[in-house]
Formats: sequence, structure tokens, C-alpha cells
Amino acid sequence: MRFFSDNAAPVHPQVMAALAAANTLDTAYDGDARSQGLDARLSALFGTDVAALWVPTGTAANCLALAALCPPHGGIVCHRDAHIQNDEGGAPEFYTHGAKLFLADGKGAKLTPASIADVIDAIPDDVHRVQPHAISITNATEYGRVYTPDEVAAIGGLAKARGLGLHMDGARFANAVATLGCTPAAVTWEAGVDALSFGFVKNGAMSAELLVFFTPALADVTRYRRKRAGLLFSKGRYLAAQVLAMLDDDLWLDNARAANARAAELAAAAGARLVHPVEANEVFLRATPDEAAALRAKGFDFYDWAAGEIRLVTAWDSPADQVAALAQAIGQL
Amino acid sequence: MRFFSDNAAPVHPQVMAALAAANTLDTAYDGDARSQGLDARLSALFGTDVAALWVPTGTAANCLALAALCPPHGGIVCHRDAHIQNDEGGAPEFYTHGAKLFLADGKGAKLTPASIADVIDAIPDDVHRVQPHAISITNATEYGRVYTPDEVAAIGGLAKARGLGLHMDGARFANAVATLGCTPAAVTWEAGVDALSFGFVKNGAMSAELLVFFTPALADVTRYRRKRAGLLFSKGRYLAAQVLAMLDDDLWLDNARAANARAAELAAAAGARLVHPVEANEVFLRATPDEAAALRAKGFDFYDWAAGEIRLVTAWDSPADQVAALAQAIGQL
Amino acid sequence: MRFFSDNAAPVHPQVMAALAAANTLDTAYDGDARSQGLDARLSALFGTDVAALWVPTGTAANCLALAALCPPHGGIVCHRDAHIQNDEGGAPEFYTHGAKLFLADGKGAKLTPASIADVIDAIPDDVHRVQPHAISITNATEYGRVYTPDEVAAIGGLAKARGLGLHMDGARFANAVATLGCTPAAVTWEAGVDALSFGFVKNGAMSAELLVFFTPALADVTRYRRKRAGLLFSKGRYLAAQVLAMLDDDLWLDNARAANARAAELAAAAGARLVHPVEANEVFLRATPDEAAALRAKGFDFYDWAAGEIRLVTAWDSPADQVAALAQAIGQL
Amino acid sequence: MRFFSDNAAPVHPQVMAALAAANTLDTAYDGDARSQGLDARLSALFGTDVAALWVPTGTAANCLALAALCPPHGGIVCHRDAHIQNDEGGAPEFYTHGAKLFLADGKGAKLTPASIADVIDAIPDDVHRVQPHAISITNATEYGRVYTPDEVAAIGGLAKARGLGLHMDGARFANAVATLGCTPAAVTWEAGVDALSFGFVKNGAMSAELLVFFTPALADVTRYRRKRAGLLFSKGRYLAAQVLAMLDDDLWLDNARAANARAAELAAAAGARLVHPVEANEVFLRATPDEAAALRAKGFDFYDWAAGEIRLVTAWDSPADQVAALAQAIGQL
Repeated sequence: MRFFSDNAAPVHPQVMAALAAANTLDTAYDGDARSQGLDARLSALFGTDVAALWVPTGTAANCLALAALCPPHGGIVCHRDAHIQNDEGGAPEFYTHGAKLFLADGKGAKLTPASIADVIDAIPDDVHRVQPHAISITNATEYGRVYTPDEVAAIGGLAKARGLGLHMDGARFANAVATLGCTPAAVTWEAGVDALSFGFVKNGAMSAELLVFFTPALADVTRYRRKRAGLLFSKGRYLAAQVLAMLDDDLWLDNARAANARAAELAAAAGARLVHPVEANEVFLRATPDEAAALRAKGFDFYDWAAGEIRLVTAWDSPADQVAALAQAIGQL
Repeated sequence: MRFFSDNAAPVHPQVMAALAAANTLDTAYDGDARSQGLDARLSALFGTDVAALWVPTGTAANCLALAALCPPHGGIVCHRDAHIQNDEGGAPEFYTHGAKLFLADGKGAKLTPASIADVIDAIPDDVHRVQPHAISITNATEYGRVYTPDEVAAIGGLAKARGLGLHMDGARFANAVATLGCTPAAVTWEAGVDALSFGFVKNGAMSAELLVFFTPALADVTRYRRKRAGLLFSKGRYLAAQVLAMLDDDLWLDNARAANARAAELAAAAGARLVHPVEANEVFLRATPDEAAALRAKGFDFYDWAAGEIRLVTAWDSPADQVAALAQAIGQL
Repeated sequence: MRFFSDNAAPVHPQVMAALAAANTLDTAYDGDARSQGLDARLSALFGTDVAALWVPTGTAANCLALAALCPPHGGIVCHRDAHIQNDEGGAPEFYTHGAKLFLADGKGAKLTPASIADVIDAIPDDVHRVQPHAISITNATEYGRVYTPDEVAAIGGLAKARGLGLHMDGARFANAVATLGCTPAAVTWEAGVDALSFGFVKNGAMSAELLVFFTPALADVTRYRRKRAGLLFSKGRYLAAQVLAMLDDDLWLDNARAANARAAELAAAAGARLVHPVEANEVFLRATPDEAAALRAKGFDFYDWAAGEIRLVTAWDSPADQVAALAQAIGQL
Repeated sequence: MRFFSDNAAPVHPQVMAALAAANTLDTAYDGDARSQGLDARLSALFGTDVAALWVPTGTAANCLALAALCPPHGGIVCHRDAHIQNDEGGAPEFYTHGAKLFLADGKGAKLTPASIADVIDAIPDDVHRVQPHAISITNATEYGRVYTPDEVAAIGGLAKARGLGLHMDGARFANAVATLGCTPAAVTWEAGVDALSFGFVKNGAMSAELLVFFTPALADVTRYRRKRAGLLFSKGRYLAAQVLAMLDDDLWLDNARAANARAAELAAAAGARLVHPVEANEVFLRATPDEAAALRAKGFDFYDWAAGEIRLVTAWDSPADQVAALAQAIGQL
């Protein structure tokens, strides 16, 4: 019973069906009707003109976004525990040609205007210092915390005041929106976000993520960069089809709600053991090595996180019985 | 009736079936059984120990290979009409951090030891000059020509003598091997090739290519680079599944043979119009603008190539009746 | 008697004196009065507002200019024999993060609007192709030819029409202006040049070149890039002092005139042997290996260029008697 | 009376004399006798075979060293307050093509095996994580502390055990050696250092630093990289001449001793105000804004460092009377 991550879950049947439906001859690259329809479809979803480019991985989405917002000689403020800092093998540095990540603090991997200002206020505007050009936040965060529209707007206000771009890593954007109950617009461009990595793979897709630019002109250069990075699939329609299937009938929200609900069950069982409030589909809880071993002995797989902490992640398809069994086992610790 | 390219053809049913079969929970990234089995499977195919990494595009395969063979301050000899020079949006320069492509000549986009030596002999070993570190050839070439094992071996000998790595862009490797009737080994490592971009997408896959290193140690660094380029899929099993399906029962060769046979039909009809011998699945023929228009009027789509030339490409699924109709139409020009 | 190159000539006594005069405590980097005065001094020379940054080498000047005019995913049109292509060890690719050099033709290493258009017209605007973003010309060229203001303006017009930046490698700019007898403005910004590498080292300085931007805003980012490239000297006043000494009393033009005059003497002696008209301080002439050996036997050092060609370069300090002796020796061949 | 930094001090008369003596025609680049003699001269100084390359700035020396020790996808452990992290405008990322700096802690900007291990032990060997490939330490440090041979050897032992390269930023190496009274070997290669940035500019030179490789083969690639970075001066003899003048008769040590002695005078006056022990030529002391203002009112210039701290730096030429006056003024605070 795997609670390692949502990143290896099976593909949702509707996505598989969409792939099958796309399996006819069509124009190459992103010239097919599905790919060409993404801008309009996402513009409708976000209630503003956006440009939406498919890419195969979240790392690719994040790093193309960062490259659009930060020059090679610039820097990007992110949380010390951000995925772009710790889990992308230096891809941000590769795509930006060596921009520097400035590490800020905040509980639950959430930045605040104050923690960002702490970092950038310490950097004089001087050629000897790498200058900040962008901020990157993750929603839901690497610890399953969710930024509210107001929280994002506060950061967006700081970004605008300092002339910085604002990127949102939305590998679990669906989980955040499902929790917030707000419009996708409220927590992105209305709050000052310039570019969103809109994740689908962790939420039921096979290999398609979207990079959404709320200033569509930013996409112009990125289309060249996407090709230059070897990311322009010749059969792009199979990526677009995945995205469209996820958006149809709000499958993306339904899947996220399912995963979030399962995590809530585990959170309820964990009670005082919780390290962070559970606001999405990740549950971090305190467990001694013996307790972790006891859970594993019952057949549950998961990550050991920091010392004395374990991470449990639910997915769109986490079986109800397995979740119930795990909740029970946690209660019995 | 599309003869634009093989790069947008539908996905073969056996590949679709393999994707469906892979649609269960498994380990993330390349930790799944399918991905883990690639080295052994490809080692068996090539009759030597190889390391095989899946990537989603041919550009990614080519450029990771080049980065493994050439440092940022080095250069790569390729044909003036090579895909890496003209059709990858600068991806070789991105992945290698700015290596230079040295352009050599040769009929049908085929290099020879002499045409390569012309280029490298003109470069003194001097810090002012970018030094060649690798050679890249394409088999089958961008004009549908095929290098024989002996021809590759002659280039491989030069590469070894000069201390250069040798990369083969095999976007249409299957078509070449189908024509040659040789073992995959004969035209690669036995002939001095260090790294092969083994293409499947043009031949019936959806989004999976293989980067095969005949010196497995070269893969060690490349695994980091693959992640750093945003190419490490979290659900890698769906890439490995495509490759394995293509290899099962020699589907890759069957598909290539089918495409080649269709191209041969067109070649027979084209006769003296042919610009290059047809040795794979691409047919370049002389046609005036009026003649090209006449073909289009009959419903055939294709690329205008150089002035007075058109390019017709067949795929694994090119319908027999459409090919016959096109052959007839060519004959009537 | 050395006629290898002007790049190793001694430093002019007035430059040495200026270094001695600068040898007092002053503000670091480019905060000293000499460095701070460069913009005004060069603006006066060019009759328009410019930004002028010292750098230690011509390669650094060229490559910072190219990086300002071309993004990493773009390309730069230059002559096939341009210094940036052949003699800078890949520095353009390093500074631009992998931009591609497109090689155009032209006699005497001179580009024309037609030869440039031949290159760029062949590149469709398509993400698969690296797009041209800039043109780089050398004045005087690598073969000692000089672009007139009209010739530059014709290229400048093309650059503007196509939205391309225009860079002039002026390693021997002084020699060109000395020959043309025009204002520095006429052959640069008035003709559409955006950035000039204004060379002093080959003309009597020790280690200072200037990068002059005719759109001063381009310098803003370049100041960061200059530091990032390790080129921001802490004792920058010794670079500024060299430049100012070269500009005082038109020393730069006097030195260039002297070198040009010496080359003209050699050209007169060479007569029909000349490969290119001699318009600056380089003389290319046809000489058999035996003839070259005969000159060397008399104590003259120089480069063998292409087969059957030798290159002779005069400098600001070429001794009159040595030049006369060489002219005589050429006449006796 | 300037105590801002040693980086803008005048050039020592013996260096100026050496420049004048070098002012004759010689071979270009590093082909002159002075440049060619550096390897032997430095090998003698260090008592082992080294390769020594001149470069014009400390940033260039540091970053070429880092590029030799760390691949683009790797990382370098340095102190949180290291010059390469805070004061080089992202040059390490530029030269290494995007390697990541890992920030470690330690009093006085000194790393210890333990503080380094804290950083690298937290990084699993996994393609998702940038892997450490090198360690960089500064001696004397950014706070004027000195690593002893034993301290360096302890770090060198860790580096060797973990397969990491070890770089020493020796912008003030002379000051450290002057304090230690050891051989240059004892604190470098004998202690496991692979590459040293041997600084001269802060110590009386004009524009020459040395990059010393204790594994000479590392220099082979670096020679290409130096050219590629636009750092290969055509008149390199003027750089070599500076270095040789600094080494003659131990001028480098005499100058450093002079600067250190002046700093010791200030340290004695500062007493309990000292933030760090004064072991080289930098003095950090606690001073309220009013106290700092009082010093400035007496004509002393210096940096405000952290809140309530000021930095005073002495140079080879700090006038005895000014230092005495400053010491007195500090005593009177």
C-alpha cells in the first residue's frame, strides 16, 4: 500500500481514453487542433487572456517559467525547501544559464512578504551582487500548505513594488484550488502571478503539464526555448489531449478533491502528531523509527522525512480501504 | 493524403496496448521494472553491454549524447544539412553549453572521412580555435541515404585516430537497419559509434526515444543531465513501455520495412526525377511548381524542399491505396 | 624584424606615462574619475550620447556586445573568416550562452547586404530554426579591408529593416577611420551601428579596449555581465588611463596613420602580388614557399596564411628602416 | 585617509618598473619568455610541479578554478559569506555553466570539516539533487581570519575522502602566509589544495593574479577556457612581469607583512571592540553609528559592515602616520 507520492499514480481512465481518441494522423508539434485550442481553453478557465504551453514535466514547466522571468545574471527568491532548489537537479540553473536561487524562510515552506524582503533588502543594487529578478512560490507547498489569494496577493504586491516577476509552482495547484474553493484566477493573476506551472501529472495525467503565462507575450520567447530544450514533441496532440481531458467536466478538481479528502482522513487520525496543518494531499507526522517500522510492517510504504517525521501522500486513486486501514494504524500507534 | 513527414503518424496499436498495460501503480522515475530492464534488453539487441536511457524527443537524445561527447569549449563536426544544425532550435548549443558545430559537406547529407578531415585538418591545435571533440552523423540521413557498416567504420576509424567521439542520430535508425539487413551492432558500436539516438517516435511510438551509450560509463553523468534538463518523467514506465513494445517481435523493423517499401514504390514511379537514391522512407524528387501544384490538386500534401524539389515521406501506416495513387500521379506528371 | 601582428607591439610612451600618472590611490572598480569620465569623453568624440565600458581584451568587448544584442537562443550573422568565428576560442558562444554564428561570404571578409540576406532569407521564422538577432562586421576587416560609411549604412539599413542589432568589431577601428578620413560617427551610429568594440591594444595601448554602446541603455545590463565575466578590474583607473591617453591629441589616429603608411609602402612594393587592396595596416600577398623562405632568410618574420599567401602586419612603431628593407626585399622576389 | 579596502591601493614601484622593463616587442599571448617562465618559477616557490596561468582579476582566477573542479551539473561548498557567493556577480555560475553554491557556516568565514559535512551529508546521491564536487575556502578569509596548515589539511582530508576538489581563494594569500610563517606549500598542496587563486592585485600589483594548479593537467583545459572567457591578453608579458616583480626578493611577503603590521596596530587599539581576531590585514570592530561618524569626522573612510560593525583594511602602502592617527582615534572612542 503505497503512500510514497502522488507522482507515480496510474493515469486516469478518461485521460487514457483521450489518448486513444487522439490516435489519428494530425499536424506535427503544436500545430494540431488540440494544442492550438489550449490558449482559448485556459483563457476561459482563468477569465483572462493567457498563453498555455504544454511540457512533459513539472521541472520543465518551472524552469521555462523562471527563464522567462529572470536573466542569466539575475536571481530568484524561493523557499529554502522549494522543489526548484532541492529536487530538480540544478535545472533552474541550466534553463536560466546560471541564475542564482536566493533561499528564504517560512513555516511549511510558505514565504511571506517579510521573509522575502529579508532576503532582498540585504542585497544592495551593485554589480558585485546578483540582483533578484523574480520570486517563486509553490502552491500547494512542498509541505502541503496552501497560500490563500490574500497571501499570494501580498507577495504579488511586493513583487510588483520591487519590479520582480512572480512564478507559482503549481505541481499541486489543483489540490490548492480544491481546498481554497476559489477561482483559479483569484490565486494567480488576480494576485499578481505572472507564470503558473499548472500540474496534471500528479493528479491523473500521464506526461503533460501546462506552463501558463498571464502576460501572453512572455510565451513568445518561451516557444523558442521550449524547442531549444528538446521539449517540443512532434506528436504534441497526445500532450494536449491529456490536459483537455483533465479539464473536461472539472476532472482536475474532482481528482484533487478525492486526494485531499483521503489526506484529511489521515490527518484526523494523526491528530497531535501532525507537523503541518493538512491543507492538500500531503500528511507529515511525527513518528519514531519504531512507529514507522510498525506501519511498514502492516504493509504501508512512505518516505522518512526529517528525523522523527514521515510523509504520507494520497493520490486521486488512493483506495478507500487502504486509507482507512492506514488511518486506523496511525491511531493505534 | 499526407506525405509531409513520418513524425506525426499515429501510434501503433501495440504501443497503445502497452501503455494500457503499464497503467498500474509502479515506482516513480526510472525505478520501475520496465525502465530498469532497458539496459539488458538493449544489450541483448546490440550484443554488447550498453546503457539505455529513455527520453521523450529525438532532439533531447541527440543533445544529451553530444553533451556527453563534447565539452562546452569544444566542437562537433556534422553535415551542413544535419538536423542538429538546422532543425533543433539551437538545442545542441544549449545542452553542450555553447559547443560549436563545424559544418562539413557530402552528397545526400552523408559525411565521409575525407569531408570530415577537410574540416578538422584546417583547425590548428591552438587555444584560439575551438577544437573538434566529436563527430555526429545521421543514419538514415536527412535525405534518406543510408550509411553502410563499412562507411560508418571508416568514419569511426577517423574518429578514433583523432580522439573524437562518434554520435549517430538514428531518428530513422530502424529504416536504415531495415535497408541494410545487418545487425544493429554492425552499423553502430562495431563501427566505432559511441552513442546512438535510437528513434521510435517516427516509427510508431508516441513519445519515447532511447539514448544508447556503447560505453556505459558515459551514461553515469548523463543521468544527472537528463534530470537537469527536465526530462526525467515521474511516470517513466510509460516511456519504457513504448520502447519495449516497439522492440517486441521486431515491431520496429516491421514498421520500418513497411515505410521503406512504400517509399520504394514512390521511387520507382519517380525514376529520373529522383534527387537522391531512395534507401529509406524519404523520397526527394524534382518537380516544377506547376507539377507540385498538380499533385496537391489531387489531394497530396508534402514539403517543398529546395527550389524545384519536393519531399515525400512515408510512414509505418502509409495507406497502400494512397501510396499507389501518389505513385500513379507522379508517373503522370 | 617582426611583421607577425600588431597585437604584440610595445606600449606607446604616452600610455606608459599615463599609467604612471594614474598611480595614486583612487576609488576602486570604475568609480574613479578617469573611468567615470569615459562616457562624456566618448560622447564628445562620437557626437552623440554613448556609454563606454573598458574591458581588457577585444574578445571581451566583442562578446559582451554580442550578448547585449542577441539572446541565448538567437543567432549572429558574421563573415566566415570573422575573428569572432575563428579566433576567439568559442567566446561568443560562452558569453551569449550558446547563440549560433551564421557564416556569410564576401571578398576580403566584407559582408554586403546581399550576402547577409542570402543567409537570413534562408531561415524561416520557425521555432525549429535559430533566428538571427544580430549582425557583426569587422572594420577594418580581418583582411585589412575597410567598410565605407555608405557600405556600413547599407548593412545598417538591412539590420533595422529586419530588426537585427549591428555590432562592429573595431579591433582596428582606428586604422579604418584613419583611412576613411571620416568622423568616427559617420561609420558607426550614423550608419546604424549599435555597439562598437573600439580597439586600442593593437594601436599602442597595453591592455584596454572600449565597448561603446550607441544606445546607452544597452550598457545597463552589460555592467552586470562585465562583472559576471570576471572583467571588472578593482584598479580600473589603469584601464581608463590608457584609453584617455590614446584619445588625447588624437594619438589613436596618429598611431593608426603611421601603421597604415608603413603598410602602404609594403603594398606599393608588392604590386600585383597583393591578394587584397591594402586599406589599413595588413598586407596579404602571394608568395611561393621559396619566396617566403627567402624573406625569412633576410630576417623577416610573418604568418603563412593560405597556401601561397603570406600576411605582413605593420604597427604604430614599425621601424622605417625595417619596413623599407622589407619593401625592397619584396620587390626583389 | 582611506581604509576602505586594499583593492584600490597604488601599484608598487617595483611593479611599475617591471612594466617599463617589459615594454619591448615580444611574442603575443603567453608565448613570451616571462609568461613561459611562470610554471618553473611557481614550481620552485611551491616545491612541486605546478601550472600557473595569469589572469587579470581574482574573480577570473576563482571561477576558472571552480570550472576546472566542478561540472555544470555539480555543486561547490563554500562559506555563506564567501566572496564567490556574495561579491562576484554570479561569475561562478557563469564560468561553471550553472553549478550551485552550497552555503556552509563557520565563525569568521572559516569552514571546518564538520560544517562542510553538515552540508554534504544532507545531500543524498540521487539525480534529483545537485551533487557536491568541490569545496572552496578563502585564506585569509573575508573576515581576515587565517586557516593554519592543519586546518586546511583537515578539510583537504575530507575533500579527498569524499572525492571533492579543493580550491583556495587566495586573494589575500600573501597576508595569510606572512602571518603563518609557513611555506606556501604547507598551506596548499601539502594540505590537499588542488587549485589556488594567488592574489597580487590587493598586494601591490596592477592587474595580475595567478591561477595555480597543483595538478598541472588541470591547466590543460583551463587554457582553452581562459581564452574562451576573453581573458587571454595579447600582451600577456605585462601580466607576467607584474607577477615576477612581486615574487622577486619576496616582495609579496614584504608587502603583506607591512599591511598585516598596520592592521595589528589598529587591532591593539581596538581591543575588546574586535569582532574577529585580526590575523591578516582586515580589522572588524564594533562601533555605534555615532562612533563611526566620529571617525569619519576625523577624515577616516571605511565600510559600514553589519549593523554596529565597521571594517578597516590596511594595504602595503598604508601610511604609518595615518594608521597611528586612526589607532589613536579608535582608542579615544
